[in-house]
Amino acid sequence: MSPRFDTISFLSDYGTTDEFVGVVKSVIRSLAPHATVLDITHEVAPYDVRGGSLTLARAVPYLCPGVVMAVVDPGVGTERRAVAIEVGGGQSYLVGPDNGLLAAAVGLVGGATDAVELSNPEYHLEAPGATFAGRDVFGPAAAHLCNGVPLYDLGEPVDPVSLLPGVIPLSREEDGTLVGQVFWVDRYGNCQLNVDPAQIADWGPRVQVRWTQPKPGSRTATRIDAFEQLEGGQVGLVTDSYGLLAIAMARGSAAETLDLATGDEIVLAPLDDDSPESPGSVTTSVTLGRKSG
Amino acid sequence: MSPRFDTISFLSDYGTTDEFVGVVKSVIRSLAPHATVLDITHEVAPYDVRGGSLTLARAVPYLCPGVVMAVVDPGVGTERRAVAIEVGGGQSYLVGPDNGLLAAAVGLVGGATDAVELSNPEYHLEAPGATFAGRDVFGPAAAHLCNGVPLYDLGEPVDPVSLLPGVIPLSREEDGTLVGQVFWVDRYGNCQLNVDPAQIADWGPRVQVRWTQPKPGSRTATRIDAFEQLEGGQVGLVTDSYGLLAIAMARGSAAETLDLATGDEIVLAPLDDDSPESPGSVTTSVTLGRKSG
Amino acid sequence: MSPRFDTISFLSDYGTTDEFVGVVKSVIRSLAPHATVLDITHEVAPYDVRGGSLTLARAVPYLCPGVVMAVVDPGVGTERRAVAIEVGGGQSYLVGPDNGLLAAAVGLVGGATDAVELSNPEYHLEAPGATFAGRDVFGPAAAHLCNGVPLYDLGEPVDPVSLLPGVIPLSREEDGTLVGQVFWVDRYGNCQLNVDPAQIADWGPRVQVRWTQPKPGSRTATRIDAFEQLEGGQVGLVTDSYGLLAIAMARGSAAETLDLATGDEIVLAPLDDDSPESPGSVTTSVTLGRKSG
Repeated sequence: MSPRFDTISFLSDYGTTDEFVGVVKSVIRSLAPHATVLDITHEVAPYDVRGGSLTLARAVPYLCPGVVMAVVDPGVGTERRAVAIEVGGGQSYLVGPDNGLLAAAVGLVGGATDAVELSNPEYHLEAPGATFAGRDVFGPAAAHLCNGVPLYDLGEPVDPVSLLPGVIPLSREEDGTLVGQVFWVDRYGNCQLNVDPAQIADWGPRVQVRWTQPKPGSRTATRIDAFEQLEGGQVGLVTDSYGLLAIAMARGSAAETLDLATGDEIVLAPLDDDSPESPGSVTTSVTLGRKSG
Repeated sequence: MSPRFDTISFLSDYGTTDEFVGVVKSVIRSLAPHATVLDITHEVAPYDVRGGSLTLARAVPYLCPGVVMAVVDPGVGTERRAVAIEVGGGQSYLVGPDNGLLAAAVGLVGGATDAVELSNPEYHLEAPGATFAGRDVFGPAAAHLCNGVPLYDLGEPVDPVSLLPGVIPLSREEDGTLVGQVFWVDRYGNCQLNVDPAQIADWGPRVQVRWTQPKPGSRTATRIDAFEQLEGGQVGLVTDSYGLLAIAMARGSAAETLDLATGDEIVLAPLDDDSPESPGSVTTSVTLGRKSG
Repeated sequence: MSPRFDTISFLSDYGTTDEFVGVVKSVIRSLAPHATVLDITHEVAPYDVRGGSLTLARAVPYLCPGVVMAVVDPGVGTERRAVAIEVGGGQSYLVGPDNGLLAAAVGLVGGATDAVELSNPEYHLEAPGATFAGRDVFGPAAAHLCNGVPLYDLGEPVDPVSLLPGVIPLSREEDGTLVGQVFWVDRYGNCQLNVDPAQIADWGPRVQVRWTQPKPGSRTATRIDAFEQLEGGQVGLVTDSYGLLAIAMARGSAAETLDLATGDEIVLAPLDDDSPESPGSVTTSVTLGRKSG
């Protein structure tokens, strides 16, 4: 058996204050000393499967071939399955709980070509008490896959169709508007939406952005190509570095200024080119003309 | 001289906002380019020797053989000794201040078989001012040990018996109860106690948990094998992934719900099987029957 | 073409909650699998070019030869140049935005011997939307330099003289006092000043420390060689581990106790050896004798 992969990309909600991440990496290094563990992030909010799945999906097009291990696992110890999912006919493997966390990433790289439940105890670490799945199950599985252990040695085959799908909310058209939501607020306060720029390709340069949570508000946003086209206080709609629409402000936090958070519903409405610009401050009741298309 | 170890496991209270960790790793990489530094955590609270020693003790059974470097060092620059401690007759070395930080970990891996004070300036980095011990003393010592430098080259031999012991509080029996304390609150709010499950092996399935800080309270806890056996709002006593008893709640933070923190004293009292269940909310004065055993 | 460097030291304001750092590292690993990325810190405050430049300058004397990549880039997407700067005639390269971030570090290692603008799109990653410069420009450039790609392949030559200088504030003499500022507050609350100990070499053992922000205050500080010479509550002036003067307290945070923050102006005034010791608490109006020299 010869080493097969040398990179394990690792995402979790473990945080870095406790020793969890270090212990998982030590276990991996003991089993597969040739492998490098590359941290995606460990600051997914505790138990936030949806947030973790979106973070993983954003990262996955850039990850090295090999093993991707993701652990956000509120159901650890329950009947939820621990799985390894093959993609690309063996080009890479994703290891983690079968709770939807991996689904969007798997879909983005072409879907599962095979899967197993990590049910073979020979490839687990024995726990002195409750299972610490990263340390006892997922880490060892990732290491063994790097070492060239065949997928089916790790446990019982699982029909990829039976894997839990992710719950990625789609945006929808409604009365000529697009109703989406804030997918992600990044460190700089940019608010990524679940809207593809192609969905508003035929709209004008200005778009009304409306929301009702936590309190109703709206702003006129200018469609821009790059952040620097915004002037201070102006709200922009930019195709962000992942290819999705994002609400942005120049060198400021759009999330803070507009009081938006992950999950908030956002309505985008096309504006006539000659409709008056909405004022610079957040307004609570605005009626603006809508384009028909 | 040929390389001897290729892993340095590194714990500190340096945080990751300043450049301290990066500088220490750069120094190590300059001296021992073949070695990999594996972070346990750097978020030990500043100067918290006790917390750091418990984190290190939890991690140490899983660390790779090689060098373990731990730096929580409120006495840097004082007469406290900087030491390297041999364990397992040379299987591994622990490097850090002789202030009790390393003691529990050293004990867990069988005790010190030799030790030196890192007093040889030839193996220090010269500091432009006050010593930054991780950069100037501990990091270089760890790197040189990885390179195969003999222990005694690093400084004067130290009698292992003279090393400062750790101050790990033990739980005690008192009137048929067990008086312990919260060792650790993890990211998920589970409260690990300094109590071995064996100490309550002959108790019934329900245990009264009492505390007096920050304000008195008590709850009836159910002994469980895995977190998922708990229902919402229920308090459980579980053997955690390190083999110690922990107070846990289902998908919620026991620490937050019960207002518990590291160091709080906890009394465990056995409950008769037929004693009434205590109410779900925290109560301030509860008298419940005790099992004799 | 054979690998030239195997270390990329990486500083940014990306934080570790989002996947930015992991994605940049994945891109680098895809392009230059032999290179190790060593994190300096990613917790520079968002957009804080000055803070990032000081952190980089403190670290740079200890970094491994190779590539240093620093990204604090409020002007991403504007006309600010992305650059690679050669130092030491090719001993190392610094990669980042030409916004002053790299200037202090470049100066500390002897100045730029050559530079290019990273304008060659063949060495960029194509972005699906707005540029994520660490992922699309800086990371690839760092990886290609490690691989041995010649500097001039990455883009158009830049006259090193045209690179944006850093804005590192200098301390100044004024009426026998030294007027400086707090450069940095570290995790332990020590306040590093932009003052070289040589500037007060002929002063006595006690120095008055005055400030006006956020509210006026002053303390008598004792000049010490090491932190341990301070007693509880006493304020010290120590030559810190980077060779600059710092205001420190014994096992406590000077910044918190004295209410000081990065950027606050500090006046140091020599005290006569026989002037009365100022009281231990912060005082708001103090008149003390000054040494003539």
